[in-house]
Order: sequence, then structure tokens, then C-alpha cells
Amino acid sequence: MLYDQLKRLGEVTVVAPDAERSAVGHAITTQVPLRVKEFRRGRELMGYATSGTPADCVKLGVSSIFERRPDLVVSGINLGANTATNVIYSGTVSAATEARILQIPSIAISLGTLQDPLWSYAASLGRRIAAAVLERGLPPKVLLNVNVPNLPRSQIKGIRVTRQGDSAYEEDFTVREDPRKQPYYWLAGSYQMVDDDPGTDAWALSNGYVSVTPITFDLTAREMLSDLKRWRWRV
Amino acid sequence: MLYDQLKRLGEVTVVAPDAERSAVGHAITTQVPLRVKEFRRGRELMGYATSGTPADCVKLGVSSIFERRPDLVVSGINLGANTATNVIYSGTVSAATEARILQIPSIAISLGTLQDPLWSYAASLGRRIAAAVLERGLPPKVLLNVNVPNLPRSQIKGIRVTRQGDSAYEEDFTVREDPRKQPYYWLAGSYQMVDDDPGTDAWALSNGYVSVTPITFDLTAREMLSDLKRWRWRV
Repeated sequence: MLYDQLKRLGEVTVVAPDAERSAVGHAITTQVPLRVKEFRRGRELMGYATSGTPADCVKLGVSSIFERRPDLVVSGINLGANTATNVIYSGTVSAATEARILQIPSIAISLGTLQDPLWSYAASLGRRIAAAVLERGLPPKVLLNVNVPNLPRSQIKGIRVTRQGDSAYEEDFTVREDPRKQPYYWLAGSYQMVDDDPGTDAWALSNGYVSVTPITFDLTAREMLSDLKRWRWRV
Repeated sequence: MLYDQLKRLGEVTVVAPDAERSAVGHAITTQVPLRVKEFRRGRELMGYATSGTPADCVKLGVSSIFERRPDLVVSGINLGANTATNVIYSGTVSAATEARILQIPSIAISLGTLQDPLWSYAASLGRRIAAAVLERGLPPKVLLNVNVPNLPRSQIKGIRVTRQGDSAYEEDFTVREDPRKQPYYWLAGSYQMVDDDPGTDAWALSNGYVSVTPITFDLTAREMLSDLKRWRWRV
């Protein structure tokens, strides 16, 4: 649905993983080769399915598949919110980040549900935000992380520009014995939100608002620089 | 060598991937179970080797292996610099980030070479920075990303508190045909630095200085918040 919406703005080519890649973070594939297959809808070449990660898809598209650099990369729509600290683990956000590293404006779009997704509003909003970014541009090293509630348009309360909230996992590994009596560990972390400040992405999403968060890949904690310089540093 | 240095400060347990994990970013493993094996040096239990990513190792250690929460997590020493945009792809940095998400102070240490590593100075400096962090603490959501030149101590020019520099890959995929005449793509990106500002991590490292960069996992691009709020946002 996002593809069809974006086609109203211009030429669109999909490059996507050939299967789900959950929680891959900003992984890139260097140890094995990647496969790329054309993906068609009827006679229409929609794009390419790759054996790589979301970030690989962007690298491949820009450097090897497309004939010219794209004006914009839109990543998503992800099934599941990418708010608060989850942004760090997100393949969807990492693909948009990869594009911005390559100096292409980019947007990540995620839908705040894991089941019964209502893609329609998120897709049309994605097209409108894409048009706005094409018109206005983005500052260097900045991209937009958009999270949309899983609601029909009539029930969306508004759109909020937010900051990334805090969150914590209550970590929980299930430990079991395999048939050969060897233990194995399986991550079963249950999400726990700890930041309910109304200025955050997570608050907006869980209160019926679209959240739009400008994010960057410059991780420098500038507010600590001057303090850290006062530590005693000796070779 | 880092383990032996850190033991001078207190009790140390290693939790590490059982083989190299390059460019895994902040991947966490949710789709398959993880294996954990004790790792000994002679009779001494040094720690645990896991089948997971660096970030998995921290989650496993803190939630399932250790009897109490660690006071500090030190990740590394990585063979290879983690400066500039490379920080985004780094498993070493992601392990330290994971610790900080779990509210444990943390440090990532990388050595600026891919061959003939000189670990000695990086290990002893790691111990001294660890002691400083234990003494002074770190602000919430902030960790230290340390990069050490591959030089003997006598040739280190100094220690600089830096910001994360910019960098770009000149993307380059090798495309070949496999024995069955199917194409495959292999990332062969050659690194290209574009930021030679003396305030950056990359400049410091390539000029004989240790770089210490405070980094955060709050990606919010705060300087764009007010501008973005002025865009026309309509549901």
C-alpha cells in the first residue's frame, strides 16, 4: 500500500529483504554474498528481493541496482512500533539511517501493532510526509522516524513531533534442556515502558497520536564533552 | 590482556561471542535459542562463550549468568577502529550500548588496526578508564567509545575527548556469477574518510592520539525539533 501511495509522487523501486528480519539492528552482511531477485506484481516490476538485511538493501539499491541515486528512501511500513529504545534494534530504522549516511533524505515508518494491521492510513500519511521531505529537505545527518497508531484515520487524534522516549526491557531468558540434555537460552524479554512523558514518541503512539521524531546517527553526547575534558587524562 | 588488567580492579567475568561477529550492529537474537559454554584458562573460569551477538552477550550475562548486576561493562578490545559512522555498525559499541540501556555504566574499546595488533597499551589504558568511570560515574544514557592507535605507549601523542566524525563508504559491490550462472553480490566497500576536523575521533586516531567520545543511544536530533514542529501537520 505504501508503494502504491508513493507512486503518486514519482518513480518507485522496492528493495526489500526476501523474508522477515527482526531485531537485526544495523547489521550489514560482509561474510557471505547476497542474492537479488526481481519481484513482480503481474507484469509490473515492483522491485527486488534480497537475501540481505534492511541496511544491505539500501546499500545494494543505491550502489548496484538503481540507475540513478534516489531522491528519497522510505523504509517500512514495519509491523510493530519503533519507539523509545526499540529504535536501536530496528531494521526498519537502520535502512533509513543507511540512506541518510549515503546523504539521501529518508523516512522510517512503523505501525504500532503486531497483529491485525490497518495499513491504509499509515500508507497515505507516508506519502504526504514523503512529499513534505522532498519539498523541504532535511538537515544533514537527520532523518524522520514515524510511528502510526493502528487506527482508522477518523480515530487518529493528531500528529506530534516528539523526542525518542526511554524504555527498558524486563529481561527474561527461558532456559530449557534440549533432547541431548544441553541447556539453551531463548530471549523472552517482555517490554516495559518507563517513560510516559507526553513529549515522547511512545506516549504519542499509545495515546492515539502519530509520532514524528527527527533522529540522527551522530551519537555524540555533546552535553558531556566539556565535563569529560576535565577528567585527568594521562597517556 | 584486558581481562588481566581489569582483574586488578575487582571481579571480572567475560561473556563473549564464540566466534567473530563482524558488522552485526545492534542485532539481538530472537528467532533461535542461544548456547552458552564455560570458558577456562587452565583451572580458572574466565567466563562464557555464547552463540549470540555482542548485544546478546550483555543481555545474557546480566539477566541469566551473573549472580549480581555488574558495576561496569567493558566491551572489546575490538580489532579495528570504531570511529566516525562505523560506530553505527559496531558490535563492540552495541554491547556497551546494551549495558547502558540496562543502566550499567559502560565503555567500548577498539584498536585502530586490522593486523599486527599491539594490545598492551590499549589494555592498560582500558583499566585506567574503567577505574575513572567507576569513580566518577557517567550521565544517564551516556557511554564512552574509546579508540586507541596501534602504537606502543611511548609513541602515543596524547588522549583527546572528541566528537564522532563523519565518514562515508565509497560503496562497491563485487558482482559475479556462481557455478550455476546465477549472480551474487559481495560488499567490497572501501572506506573513505570525509571529516578531518581535529575535534573528531577519526582525526585523533589517525594522528596518534587516543580518542574518547561520549556517545548516547538517544538518537533525537534535538536541533531539528522546533523547525519540524512548524511543518504543516494534518491528520
